[in-house]
Amino acid sequence: MPASPLDPARLTADLIRCPSVTPEEGGALLLLEGVLSDAGFACTRVDRGGVSNLYARWGDRGAARSFGFNGHTDVVPVGDEGAWSVPPFDAVERDGMLWGRGATDMKSGVAAFAAAAVDFVRDTPPDGAVILAITGDEEGDAVDGTRALLDWMEANDERMTACLVGEPTCPERMGEMIKIGRRGSLSAWITITGVQGHSAYPHRARNPLPAMARLMDRLSSHTLDEGTAHFDPSTLAVVTIDTGNPATNVIPAECRATVNIRFNDSHDGASLTAWLQDEIDRVAAGFGVGATMRVKVSGEAFLTPPGALSALVARAVEAETGIAPALSTTGGTSDARFVRNHCPVVEFGLVGQTMHQVDERVEIDQIHQLKAIYSQILRDYFT
Amino acid sequence: MPASPLDPARLTADLIRCPSVTPEEGGALLLLEGVLSDAGFACTRVDRGGVSNLYARWGDRGAARSFGFNGHTDVVPVGDEGAWSVPPFDAVERDGMLWGRGATDMKSGVAAFAAAAVDFVRDTPPDGAVILAITGDEEGDAVDGTRALLDWMEANDERMTACLVGEPTCPERMGEMIKIGRRGSLSAWITITGVQGHSAYPHRARNPLPAMARLMDRLSSHTLDEGTAHFDPSTLAVVTIDTGNPATNVIPAECRATVNIRFNDSHDGASLTAWLQDEIDRVAAGFGVGATMRVKVSGEAFLTPPGALSALVARAVEAETGIAPALSTTGGTSDARFVRNHCPVVEFGLVGQTMHQVDERVEIDQIHQLKAIYSQILRDYFT
Ligand SMILES: [Zn+2]
Ligand SMILES: [Zn+2]
Repeated sequence: MPASPLDPARLTADLIRCPSVTPEEGGALLLLEGVLSDAGFACTRVDRGGVSNLYARWGDRGAARSFGFNGHTDVVPVGDEGAWSVPPFDAVERDGMLWGRGATDMKSGVAAFAAAAVDFVRDTPPDGAVILAITGDEEGDAVDGTRALLDWMEANDERMTACLVGEPTCPERMGEMIKIGRRGSLSAWITITGVQGHSAYPHRARNPLPAMARLMDRLSSHTLDEGTAHFDPSTLAVVTIDTGNPATNVIPAECRATVNIRFNDSHDGASLTAWLQDEIDRVAAGFGVGATMRVKVSGEAFLTPPGALSALVARAVEAETGIAPALSTTGGTSDARFVRNHCPVVEFGLVGQTMHQVDERVEIDQIHQLKAIYSQILRDYFT
Repeated sequence: MPASPLDPARLTADLIRCPSVTPEEGGALLLLEGVLSDAGFACTRVDRGGVSNLYARWGDRGAARSFGFNGHTDVVPVGDEGAWSVPPFDAVERDGMLWGRGATDMKSGVAAFAAAAVDFVRDTPPDGAVILAITGDEEGDAVDGTRALLDWMEANDERMTACLVGEPTCPERMGEMIKIGRRGSLSAWITITGVQGHSAYPHRARNPLPAMARLMDRLSSHTLDEGTAHFDPSTLAVVTIDTGNPATNVIPAECRATVNIRFNDSHDGASLTAWLQDEIDRVAAGFGVGATMRVKVSGEAFLTPPGALSALVARAVEAETGIAPALSTTGGTSDARFVRNHCPVVEFGLVGQTMHQVDERVEIDQIHQLKAIYSQILRDYFT
């Protein structure tokens, strides 16, 4: 008599009951370690910088084919707890949904791929390895999360030959979108400095605000590109301009602004930084003001070009949902930006509409569907 | 034996000892009322809205020639009292200077014209009237100060045929500048409103910041005029732009900015308001954002064209100092902007370098010089 399949909805509920708000482990990784160890996975806790991560491998290290899943068990804070319809860590089941923080982002995804992997290696042991690289730090700085796992893998000759990140990827309907890349993200903090003075005597002052207005106008009217084969056009958003001068008769000495650029594969952090610096220098020289910039590139743009891996995932999605998924690069950043340096990576998960919100919840049917898709991917990959 | 002349330096010191920080009367007007009543001036307290003002007339109401002086006894706060070298209301005499809040702005000016007027009417009673219109609200809102005095004069058939405002007017050297007009001042508070969103999905948001940057760039690069016969070019200063958005991944819903325009006699508050509204409407329509504006005109531009009054004052200044004063319209606003609706008005006073600062102080010799100049003006006016 075969062992009964692992229920991904029950596992999701168990994970929701672990209050693993970043950087708290909350019992979530411990729970998974138990399930996976029992199923024959070699588990290693890869903890770094106060963050917990779990590496689990079934099969041989260095197998010619080793399929990996990546995901996170940490969740964002609950926000206004009083605004929730249910306690956010109780995993209440109601109206065919499972309610709680992390229900969509992404304890259901982790539960689905863990359940798929456990059943797969037990029922049809593959000629290769199945790897689960699960982090407790995706919603935070992400410095000691998936990066720590990848660093540890590198140091220990652990390798995935392909990877699927189980983040929610579908905007509205289950199955409609696979992510094959992500835009990069760069933030720049710009300060323009002049000379304070009285607004009745502007010639004695040097106002930083006209220079800032000109700079922000130039940056926000510039067309970075028209889009590329697999990416939308890059965008630049001026997210804040601040002076804090309460006096109408005083010309301020300083003004600060922040811009955020979401860029495609026709740019990288270095080229955009150089462009920004050039624009700043040009405007500052023209207005005779000082200017400084601090830049943070939180992720470079990357693409896993459509090919074997995305085709495999798309076939599994369509087989289960009847929908041919789009291959997209839209949206924010994810840990795929780290994995892409290791091996080909795509992302597929369920509908993320309530993620990070009050009353986060997931359709229980979708969790089962997601496990079925992940199972099909494993079968196809090792066939 | 003639009565001894009134010492304007001693009177300045007595006034400094009255702590008349706006709107406190502090005993300053009471002191002047005593001195002027003793000298035969008819004194009336014109108090309004919690502010004290003093109207003093020697001679007949409705005289064909009535020369007026205007000034204020209120002072700005002392600021950081610990940073003063002397107690700010002690009127310490040191190094040939009188130290204290109001020493230059403008208890010395009030003392000088009061002393000149008292001696003049006693020693050489003129065929006409000498009027002192002294307010306790120039540094504050100025709503119930000189305006209250002028309203009361209008209601009571009191009239000046010429007026001198005794504010400090000399940038560096005693005697170098008479003011024959003032630029106007307008402040506008502008709010641009869009739709908040995530900076990874800028097409779903409507960012107010590019529109604000464009608007501020347009306003600050516009040449309002090239100056007029007696005025420098008008200036526009963007004094603050603020958003207050702490999140680099959020496009804000709203941005606020303030501009201050100092304008000459080729504009007025209404024409500038219309121009601003037109610019705002144009930019808001172009960017598809909302925009609102609030405007405050704190004074219209005005000019007493060079003529008999300015020539009279210039002659007296040159006779006493050896310097031919420039006829200027530079600087901020003063109560002359109210007086100019009543009669021709010019402004002349001493060097104002330490006004509103810690360790405000005045050369004692300058106070005597100022009294001599005011005395000469009175003699010339009634000859
Ligand atoms: Zn996530
Ligand atoms: Zn003053």
